[in-house]
Amino acid sequence: MREVTAYNWVPDFAQGFVKDLRVRWALEEAGLSYTQRLIDHEQKVQAGHLSRQPFAQVPVYRDDTADLFESGAIVLRIASGSLALMPEGAAAQARVSSWIFAALNSVEPYVANVQTTELFDSEADWAPGFLEIARQRLSQRMTRLSDWLEAREYLEAGRFTAGDLMMATVLRDLERGEMLARFPVIDAYLARCLSRPAFRRAHEAQLAAFSGQMPG
Amino acid sequence: MREVTAYNWVPDFAQGFVKDLRVRWALEEAGLSYTQRLIDHEQKVQAGHLSRQPFAQVPVYRDDTADLFESGAIVLRIASGSLALMPEGAAAQARVSSWIFAALNSVEPYVANVQTTELFDSEADWAPGFLEIARQRLSQRMTRLSDWLEAREYLEAGRFTAGDLMMATVLRDLERGEMLARFPVIDAYLARCLSRPAFRRAHEAQLAAFSGQMPG
Repeated sequence: MREVTAYNWVPDFAQGFVKDLRVRWALEEAGLSYTQRLIDHEQKVQAGHLSRQPFAQVPVYRDDTADLFESGAIVLRIASGSLALMPEGAAAQARVSSWIFAALNSVEPYVANVQTTELFDSEADWAPGFLEIARQRLSQRMTRLSDWLEAREYLEAGRFTAGDLMMATVLRDLERGEMLARFPVIDAYLARCLSRPAFRRAHEAQLAAFSGQMPG
Repeated sequence: MREVTAYNWVPDFAQGFVKDLRVRWALEEAGLSYTQRLIDHEQKVQAGHLSRQPFAQVPVYRDDTADLFESGAIVLRIASGSLALMPEGAAAQARVSSWIFAALNSVEPYVANVQTTELFDSEADWAPGFLEIARQRLSQRMTRLSDWLEAREYLEAGRFTAGDLMMATVLRDLERGEMLARFPVIDAYLARCLSRPAFRRAHEAQLAAFSGQMPG
């Protein structure tokens, strides 16, 4: 049994970008079937959901053994059981784990500051000044990441791993803005990750949940 | 063999707050000895370091099996081998993993936006407007966390775990500001975590590295 909790509806700008996408993608890569439990934005703040997700978010995930939250923790759990997402060997797996955390803590906060400001606060009087410094900081991280990917197809182990899955979902938010065009190495890497059939299936499954066409 | 890479010097405001503290604290809780490798701010951008830490940061960690970066990945690795940091059982361990990610991805970015603006950009013309919304967003996360901790001593499993270690190091940045006073449940929880002898030893070890008194 594997169950992913996701929303039954989100506004247009969020469709295809809610973080259960990461879990769906990991399960598709691993070839694991799952059921979905769809909730609305009233249910997310009720005690039953908060006992599983204390910050009133999605995704939540459970399998026969565990019940957990945070997309990073869930993807790491799925990846730890699947050679489709993890290379063999403890040393290589530790590096993949590093990249999962790097995507979420060393890259995503910088992406989010730029992207959420452009999306939600662009009219605020503080936006131009803040965006200038937020873009500088993101650009520094992107430069390091680009240097790393210069001679590599994927982040680690010469192959697609759960680290790439997580990094690609973080970078994908930048497709709405202009930053990616300045980093062609990253742009090509992102396209490589997102061209995977498992990503397409996961993306379609999230969108289908919003339209009421729940995939079998 | 266990080796933690840290800085040999940082400015005053950062002393006691560099993220190798998390790794030192985890090792102290687990009762594991380690050596430190101290680098300066020129070495952090050289190829040797970048091959281990692509974003030119610390900590980096290695043991007999693995070489990894990102404090979250390192603490999770140490915790996975120590009942001092993890409860028994896969279900409880998955919850602790969720909290490690929650600290780093659902709380720290909101803390950082408030705290780094107050610390570095308070004179910028965009600071007052941005801080108003950043404090609101942080306050929402703090309210959820406070609700969770209302009837609990620790985040999960009725005991101190690696999730608390990570959350406490994130929340500790707020001790410089005024937000914690509004959340007495969190303030008491933080004090509970930071009163642990292992935290004190880790903190002293980081400070000693800056003064050139490298602990045995």
